[in-house]
Amino acid sequence: MGKQKRVLGIDPGSHRLGVGCIEKTGNTLRLVFAEVISAPARHSLYGRLEIIGLRLREIIDQLVPEEIAVEDIFHAKNARSAFHLGIARGVAISACLGRGVKIFEYAPTQVKSIVTGYGRADKEQVKKMVRLILGHEITLGYDATDAIAIAICHANTVKVSEHLGSAQIRRETENGRLSSRKNP
Amino acid sequence: MGKQKRVLGIDPGSHRLGVGCIEKTGNTLRLVFAEVISAPARHSLYGRLEIIGLRLREIIDQLVPEEIAVEDIFHAKNARSAFHLGIARGVAISACLGRGVKIFEYAPTQVKSIVTGYGRADKEQVKKMVRLILGHEITLGYDATDAIAIAICHANTVKVSEHLGSAQIRRETENGRLSSRKNP
Repeated sequence: MGKQKRVLGIDPGSHRLGVGCIEKTGNTLRLVFAEVISAPARHSLYGRLEIIGLRLREIIDQLVPEEIAVEDIFHAKNARSAFHLGIARGVAISACLGRGVKIFEYAPTQVKSIVTGYGRADKEQVKKMVRLILGHEITLGYDATDAIAIAICHANTVKVSEHLGSAQIRRETENGRLSSRKNP
Repeated sequence: MGKQKRVLGIDPGSHRLGVGCIEKTGNTLRLVFAEVISAPARHSLYGRLEIIGLRLREIIDQLVPEEIAVEDIFHAKNARSAFHLGIARGVAISACLGRGVKIFEYAPTQVKSIVTGYGRADKEQVKKMVRLILGHEITLGYDATDAIAIAICHANTVKVSEHLGSAQIRRETENGRLSSRKNP
């Protein structure tokens, strides 16, 4: 048994935000928590972000994860929607700031590739693999399983980079993103 | 003398964030505070956002503004840079959440038009008008004067909308500019 570590995966959006927390002990992953924070569409953008941001802070205060992984989402149709995705991401990241938590980013294809073995897997395939890896059913929607998948991706990627040497880890965290796409 | 109100203008960026706080009493505007929060380029994106976000929260806690105005920035070259602008905006907005502060957005041309009378004014012209309106020199850079200009824009636009009713806010911004010139 190695030391225990908590990883929080976040799948940010301005209407819904998926959160999945897993605990890694040695080679074992265990699901600690999952939630889809949703904000009613009747609220303004800022009203929704407030609901989402405040709930996320509560969750982080409660779970106290050591590391946070977010998807380096980038499937925006145009600059305007990229801007809105960025705002949602900024609000999610803000909930983590000042808590000494390290933040890591993964491309969607990297998450899918590490979790399912296939970079273009669909949400249902990701959900099935998350269930297999963690050994129990997730009753929440795809936003939750996507967030858990990001956490699993991080837990297993860091494992690889620990094997490959800390120089790489340092470089990755300094850049604020994990550039270890060659690692898996 | 009307009632007093504090407006905080924010010009968000991922390397520097301009903050300008003005107080409006009746028809008089007074500069309360201005700062350019900067984060050294050697830090990662998240490191910089952490420095900026935490300092902004401190400022908001200290100044306790009733309303916050941000520029509806949108001069991104491409979707990628729009995404990064969005993240910076999300972090700035997060600092305001859960404090009961109202957030307002203004297009850059609207800010320039209300403050200088010309929607395509450059940063130097904006700085000069901010100095004239508030009656003293701003020694900080354009990030600070831009932020103050956003606060002035909001203070005077709201004034007009109080007089004319909210349906006419957009059409009557020209009057907001004229009334701001009587203020210095």
